[in-house]
Amino acid sequence: MATIVFCSVNKTARTTARRCLSSYSKGLASSGESPFSCTHSPLTTLLPGTRWFSRGSSVRFMSQGTAGRAGAGRTRRGALALTGAAAVTAAAAVAGFLANANHFQRAEMATKVSPIAEEKQPEGDILERCRGFMSPPVTDIGELQERKGEMRTRMEMLIMETQADFCKALQEVDGGKFKVDRWQRNEGGGGISCVMQDGKVFEKAGVNVSVVFGHLTEEAAKQMRSRGKVLKGKDGKLPFCAMGVSSVIHPKNPHIPTVHFNYRYFEIEEEDGSKQWWFGGGTDLTPVYISKEDAFHFHNTLKEACDKHHSQYYPDFKKWCDRYFYIRHRGETRGIGGIFFDDLDSPSQEEAFSFVKSCARTVVPCYLPIVSKHLNDSFTDEEKDWQQVRRGRYVEFNLVYDRGVKFGLATPGSRIESILMSLPLTARWEYMHEPAKGTLEAEMLEALRNPKEWV
Amino acid sequence: MATIVFCSVNKTARTTARRCLSSYSKGLASSGESPFSCTHSPLTTLLPGTRWFSRGSSVRFMSQGTAGRAGAGRTRRGALALTGAAAVTAAAAVAGFLANANHFQRAEMATKVSPIAEEKQPEGDILERCRGFMSPPVTDIGELQERKGEMRTRMEMLIMETQADFCKALQEVDGGKFKVDRWQRNEGGGGISCVMQDGKVFEKAGVNVSVVFGHLTEEAAKQMRSRGKVLKGKDGKLPFCAMGVSSVIHPKNPHIPTVHFNYRYFEIEEEDGSKQWWFGGGTDLTPVYISKEDAFHFHNTLKEACDKHHSQYYPDFKKWCDRYFYIRHRGETRGIGGIFFDDLDSPSQEEAFSFVKSCARTVVPCYLPIVSKHLNDSFTDEEKDWQQVRRGRYVEFNLVYDRGVKFGLATPGSRIESILMSLPLTARWEYMHEPAKGTLEAEMLEALRNPKEWV
Repeated sequence: MATIVFCSVNKTARTTARRCLSSYSKGLASSGESPFSCTHSPLTTLLPGTRWFSRGSSVRFMSQGTAGRAGAGRTRRGALALTGAAAVTAAAAVAGFLANANHFQRAEMATKVSPIAEEKQPEGDILERCRGFMSPPVTDIGELQERKGEMRTRMEMLIMETQADFCKALQEVDGGKFKVDRWQRNEGGGGISCVMQDGKVFEKAGVNVSVVFGHLTEEAAKQMRSRGKVLKGKDGKLPFCAMGVSSVIHPKNPHIPTVHFNYRYFEIEEEDGSKQWWFGGGTDLTPVYISKEDAFHFHNTLKEACDKHHSQYYPDFKKWCDRYFYIRHRGETRGIGGIFFDDLDSPSQEEAFSFVKSCARTVVPCYLPIVSKHLNDSFTDEEKDWQQVRRGRYVEFNLVYDRGVKFGLATPGSRIESILMSLPLTARWEYMHEPAKGTLEAEMLEALRNPKEWV
Repeated sequence: MATIVFCSVNKTARTTARRCLSSYSKGLASSGESPFSCTHSPLTTLLPGTRWFSRGSSVRFMSQGTAGRAGAGRTRRGALALTGAAAVTAAAAVAGFLANANHFQRAEMATKVSPIAEEKQPEGDILERCRGFMSPPVTDIGELQERKGEMRTRMEMLIMETQADFCKALQEVDGGKFKVDRWQRNEGGGGISCVMQDGKVFEKAGVNVSVVFGHLTEEAAKQMRSRGKVLKGKDGKLPFCAMGVSSVIHPKNPHIPTVHFNYRYFEIEEEDGSKQWWFGGGTDLTPVYISKEDAFHFHNTLKEACDKHHSQYYPDFKKWCDRYFYIRHRGETRGIGGIFFDDLDSPSQEEAFSFVKSCARTVVPCYLPIVSKHLNDSFTDEEKDWQQVRRGRYVEFNLVYDRGVKFGLATPGSRIESILMSLPLTARWEYMHEPAKGTLEAEMLEALRNPKEWV
């Protein structure tokens, strides 16, 4: 069985990422701010005097995109937030980001790190890795160190790392800062919600980690699993542990798509002491306008991550994604998909984890190049309105169909703000809205009504 | 048993309404427009050459409200849309409306027409009454004339009349015009949706009538009734007829509340040919800011309508309303309530219908005086934002809990646009939004967390 490794950044990427982050760290030091702005429950673990830094992420950038498309007869708004006094911080951060990006500029879209580098790097010291997180992990660091070989520890480290890498990449492009809330669950566990609202680039960006444990009834255990397998508990109760990282990013510019991802792990102990475990997850894109180049980049990055593990993963999980993110009453998918899977418990725990790790590590390379490409795209009021109508459909899917949201809203003691973090800052419902034939809006709708193969 | 009558407008009100509407009719005549702008399925019945006019509505107006409240340190936006070239039509209509309103100006809020007038007036000729509707009724007029004594005919006439009275009252205050869509249901029946979007006063106003019939399974029949009574059908199938008028009005000004009402009637035929029937309905108010005067007026108008029929109706249906419009995951009601009832099949069909008629006829006097009162209220950006956050909660209730919406979305062949007409034009979700203590926003939230007695 292959050794599972975390630190898969290649050297060039790491150097670049550190260069970006050194100015970020300086900014924090000079402002006297703590990189943790925990506004909620007190930290369960503190690491006094530690200097938090980022591990960075290994992204290669595609060519800087078309700065706006021809808008026959439409008034264009100025490109977003990169000029003007109020945007200085953002501009500085974005400029740094783009300058670094130039090192990797290519005609084709981003690629992932090489599988070889990924295989060979060790998981590394728990304490050292925690220094890069947005907050200390949910579980006490001492406890994580004690059981560092266990899957629940390795997964918690992965989701914390994914949260940190993604948040830092978004902060750099936006210039804003995530608000970090730690919260505790009375019944066991808790979470870390990172939210950036009304930033320069992002209307609302949420990246949430939760690690919860306790006991489930047999009925609840059955519901948690999409295959609905019956599990036997001691006196009908099953000790469980569930953890995941999930994120929804709604940008302001209608030419930058919304992205969503979620990677999760469950463990349930049966009456005889044996453990059932499985992984689930996915990453999917919801553009407002179709860009075939973006769609190819996004799907191809996911496909490459999948193909390293099984040639059937991408085609199967792509279909599953289109099926899952379907707004039945509208007859349209939420977006242009990506991958989605659940109940993954084969071929082995080690290999399933390795696959989930590959997926989690493609979140930044899937999305950030698309953000960078469209950062300077100008847009019209009509384009903004269409984005708002699509946001309305996003709300419809999330409140009416999303299993996670439904389960969360129906569960007493859930943290509602973290569950509904996925809703956009603003949305719109127009009666009988139907784009005119031949428009870019109609082209988008057509792709949602008839899911396509993008790779 | 009391004779049931429709035409309950008193003489003064009728004269006034006609005076208002004569200029409205002239406008239509000179523009050559038909008062029916049916954009959908062809009319099942046409009355060539008829001149459509309104029956008007008998509203008495409360004192013209405070034009804005003291907004310590806040920048106020100008009062809404009653000045400026673009608002000429609206201003003219509103000015006429207010001038007529002066005839009835009183310190106290609106009252309903006298019960005596209501009891004595005959139901009137079907064809004559249809002339006041927004569109010919769903059922063919000839068929309605043939079975004019049946409850389904009388109820269809009532809901068409309620739609027309309400739409016309809103048109007068807004200056805009409802878009009227007729639609047909393949399985039997259809509806008439009236929507005004982005008007001068109303962000989105929808008033929908539907009359549907066909066959239900025993399971579906059980679900339609809130008490879940088991009904026996011939070969498991039950012929049914369901009809109702429903409306949601979202104004632009945050000092004008959102209103919702719905009055409905069901008939199901059992195996032995006997008919089960029942009524349901309610009217409720969702303000953005608390006005005790508005709340008293709204609830008191409903209470007076209820009290004419049973002293227990208002207290019972007020509680039912608070229970029904509850956003469980937020721990708050959607608004400040009103009345809500279902499965009403006593003391007799005649008396139940008489009660529903009283309720339907209070829709205009419940709401329009509140609209008029706040028409000129100025508001700040912060007040508009708070309105948008409350709109978000409205969406949450409607998509997550509302029985009608859930049933509609899950039913193949439903007209989605009519079901989701209730969603606001725009809404907002802010992460961790919590008004500061002592603010008017906190006062509103307190009333939603702890429902009050307003009368």
